[in-house]
Amino acid sequence: MRVTVIGMGLIGGSIALDLRAAGVSQILTGVDENLQHCEQAMTRNLVDEILPLAAAVQKADCVILAVPVGAISKLLPTILDIVGSQTTVTDMGSTKSLIVKSVSGHKNRGQFVAAHPMAGTEFSGPLAAHLGLFSNRTAVICDSEDSGPEHLSRVEKIFLALRMRLVRMTADEHDLQTAFVSHLSHISSFVLANTVLEKERDTRTIFDLAGGGFESTVRLAKSSPAMWSPIFKQNRDNVLLAVDSYIQHLQEFATSIRQNDFAKAEQLMKDANQIGRVLRSVSQASSRSPE
Amino acid sequence: MRVTVIGMGLIGGSIALDLRAAGVSQILTGVDENLQHCEQAMTRNLVDEILPLAAAVQKADCVILAVPVGAISKLLPTILDIVGSQTTVTDMGSTKSLIVKSVSGHKNRGQFVAAHPMAGTEFSGPLAAHLGLFSNRTAVICDSEDSGPEHLSRVEKIFLALRMRLVRMTADEHDLQTAFVSHLSHISSFVLANTVLEKERDTRTIFDLAGGGFESTVRLAKSSPAMWSPIFKQNRDNVLLAVDSYIQHLQEFATSIRQNDFAKAEQLMKDANQIGRVLRSVSQASSRSPE
Repeated sequence: MRVTVIGMGLIGGSIALDLRAAGVSQILTGVDENLQHCEQAMTRNLVDEILPLAAAVQKADCVILAVPVGAISKLLPTILDIVGSQTTVTDMGSTKSLIVKSVSGHKNRGQFVAAHPMAGTEFSGPLAAHLGLFSNRTAVICDSEDSGPEHLSRVEKIFLALRMRLVRMTADEHDLQTAFVSHLSHISSFVLANTVLEKERDTRTIFDLAGGGFESTVRLAKSSPAMWSPIFKQNRDNVLLAVDSYIQHLQEFATSIRQNDFAKAEQLMKDANQIGRVLRSVSQASSRSPE
Repeated sequence: MRVTVIGMGLIGGSIALDLRAAGVSQILTGVDENLQHCEQAMTRNLVDEILPLAAAVQKADCVILAVPVGAISKLLPTILDIVGSQTTVTDMGSTKSLIVKSVSGHKNRGQFVAAHPMAGTEFSGPLAAHLGLFSNRTAVICDSEDSGPEHLSRVEKIFLALRMRLVRMTADEHDLQTAFVSHLSHISSFVLANTVLEKERDTRTIFDLAGGGFESTVRLAKSSPAMWSPIFKQNRDNVLLAVDSYIQHLQEFATSIRQNDFAKAEQLMKDANQIGRVLRSVSQASSRSPE
């Protein structure tokens, strides 16, 4: 299969590496408007060639959009305009509602499969790409009834080659759930970093005291603003719902402490401990050796 | 050196393992009011014997208190009452102000060294204890001018044997800084877990979507309520200061999104990215091979 990957970042680069390793794609074409990223992608052999967008789209059996979600919404209608009649187009964006809306009613809508592989790290760019990023994670496919069966099947084949679990939901449901489970984690982490950086003008103190669990909690605060700003923009209402709910829960926790109601605080912590059971099932699934 | 460790949990058990491995202590005595913990500590060979508190304290050259901070405040004056005249007493508590106040003016105050090794995991109990937990982390020693030089020197020798960096500060300064750098991380994580668990009644959805960074951000939500409730109680005012500041920063972030001011949101994320530089210096120090 000839695959064109648009965006030579962490996600696009990693998917290219995996598709080559799995033997799914014999010819990989990359597209990126950042020249340095193009050079790095060629140096790391992520793709076989770099081409301009139109040329790269027209020769592909499958086009994978792995750029920030704002750019996906802008590029997608144009790509469906110029794409060959048998070509499948899919995207890796962290939001889905506005992306599917951008091609709602497009004559080639059936060639597009809206997807979101739930994988990533706090690093970005072609140098962060690595094999196995997607292994044992979930690939969400949205509004699948709007995609042609041959295109759905092709995209599912790609995700299965990446050793991913497949889940289907509507784009709207995806955006609501990821606001809570993924987007809120990033905001809690960005804001925790800012709260501590403001307090500790002497970063040596952070360095000294970071052993107490701070490191993992702020890991996501290193994430790319260029990637996350468009996600918060596209998923604005759900993200605000999640942040407002988080603030309410924080106020409830603070109130229990303020009122010296430590039985209440302890109960809230015991409730939170339940997440351990959920995460254990996740990590067990992640550590199961793939068939 | 005969060392008595009070509390056979993650911290007490790990310090016992390290002291034996480093050859610092030839005879290790454990104390724990939980009989199952006593059995597990003996089965895992964390200590050579389990004794009642008074007997264990009276035969020790050094007593290490590794129980929840509320219990430290209660036990410490009694221990200084009955301790031998040459014995050093230290504690591993995550708060320091109320603990030093509990023995302020005690005739044997000089034998006590208030300490906090900045290390831990989200797990607890003797089965969680492991070698190397403290390696390349920071040990904070508080109000050192109130401790006798021979006792300070003995405690510093112990922490250096554990391959820790030594930092001194006042108990009040310690409690303020750890409220922001350590205690707030735990609250942000407990509350994130509760926010998501409340929203996602079907935990399968959390399982499916957790690849997006959720796991590391809620890791600390698995922490022991029995350990953390007394910390929040003892450090109540500083913890409230930290949570209130965190809520303000969250509201600022939410406002930028609500007002569609994504340039502001992006700037806040760029500010947060600075934590990467600080954490890099931490992890570099952690991965430096000890001399």
